[in-house]
Amino acid sequence: MKLVLLRHGESEWNKKNLFTGWTDVDLSDNGREEARNAGALLRQNGFDFDLCYTSCLKRAIHTLNLALEQMDREWLPVVKSWKLNERHYGALQGLNKAETSQKYGEEQVQVWRRSFDVRPPLLDDGDGRNPRLQVQYRDVPARELPRGESLADTIARVVPYFERNIRKEMESGKRVLIAAHGNSLRALIYWFEKLSKEEITGVNLPTGVPLVYTLDEKWNVTGKEYLGDPELIRAKIQSVADQGKTKES
Amino acid sequence: MKLVLLRHGESEWNKKNLFTGWTDVDLSDNGREEARNAGALLRQNGFDFDLCYTSCLKRAIHTLNLALEQMDREWLPVVKSWKLNERHYGALQGLNKAETSQKYGEEQVQVWRRSFDVRPPLLDDGDGRNPRLQVQYRDVPARELPRGESLADTIARVVPYFERNIRKEMESGKRVLIAAHGNSLRALIYWFEKLSKEEITGVNLPTGVPLVYTLDEKWNVTGKEYLGDPELIRAKIQSVADQGKTKES
Repeated sequence: MKLVLLRHGESEWNKKNLFTGWTDVDLSDNGREEARNAGALLRQNGFDFDLCYTSCLKRAIHTLNLALEQMDREWLPVVKSWKLNERHYGALQGLNKAETSQKYGEEQVQVWRRSFDVRPPLLDDGDGRNPRLQVQYRDVPARELPRGESLADTIARVVPYFERNIRKEMESGKRVLIAAHGNSLRALIYWFEKLSKEEITGVNLPTGVPLVYTLDEKWNVTGKEYLGDPELIRAKIQSVADQGKTKES
Repeated sequence: MKLVLLRHGESEWNKKNLFTGWTDVDLSDNGREEARNAGALLRQNGFDFDLCYTSCLKRAIHTLNLALEQMDREWLPVVKSWKLNERHYGALQGLNKAETSQKYGEEQVQVWRRSFDVRPPLLDDGDGRNPRLQVQYRDVPARELPRGESLADTIARVVPYFERNIRKEMESGKRVLIAAHGNSLRALIYWFEKLSKEEITGVNLPTGVPLVYTLDEKWNVTGKEYLGDPELIRAKIQSVADQGKTKES
């Protein structure tokens, strides 16, 4: 079985160095170009799919749409789920790095960014950023919606969603493409590769680069490959690692 | 219950005056603009949806995507089905009006265009335009796929699809938007309004204009309204009626 993971391209907030999380910002022009390139790479490498998944956030949805357009595969079924959303960054959403360090201290910010299971400050119930108040999540039971997540929390919603929904589709022979976010995809990588907490916090996923997993029938990873120019991919991974923030936003 | 029907905007082949049918041509720049306008009108008029349907053809899919973008509703679930595709125009697909009249005679062409239940010349089995040979329809049983359709044939696939799939969603309270094609939407209009064969062949649906039906619990039409500038809508309907071809392509 093959599974392709695609992290959305650069968003309008990446450039501004803001914590994004579930804020529904659009792709930048550069991000749209990354998405088209990802689709072209998939096409050139002979990939085809039966079923696509994405989040409820437009930067992932647009990435998928633009990639499918390049593949002439607009007609493929697409399932959108909030379970594939980015890590919810709680009260940090909308703050920039400098503001956050001023408000909470440099050291604390590093902990929120780099730790496995420490949550950011949670949103107040009445905060407009609280998903319970947002129209996108009106059909989701309130108790399921986070007001801030650690990476561990993100894993705890993404992996069960994969196991209950996507896994059986793949086992029935469907070829799946998932267009999502740095942390929701890291949740899957953590699961597939059976990584430790330390290992997953060191994984940096480049934007707009298709990551192809090959899995055997027992779901062991037998192959892992990025599509595209190795030099460019290395540079992108380094850029994500250097920024720190981008990795988790 | 309300139901909104949206016919895709101008395609690249509308301008060339070619029979399109299931040919998967993209929107023109003008068609993209029409789609954005439709989304803006829906937003300005306070419309919201729970579920969207479209065909497997990119001119309808892109129309829906662009409208949802204007409404900030990219995250809505979208179901794509070939059952909502345009009328299949058989061996006429890709021919222009002049060629068609030369090949088959003016009178015969009028019959194919205006009649309720006369099919165009069917595609040969080995013709590359035969849906049975096209990747989009690889999961559809061959016997279900047309090689050319009359309006009656189109109605016979669209209406049962609506009855089996969309109707129950609406009865459970879901607000539905359908972005599709001149003839697949006429099939629904025929059904909702209980029109005669003569009446439906005279219906001209303007491109890119949301058509809002209000229905009571017994599925009687209690309201029908186009959104937007009445003058512009009248001009669009007249343009479709004048062209003849466009109405059915």
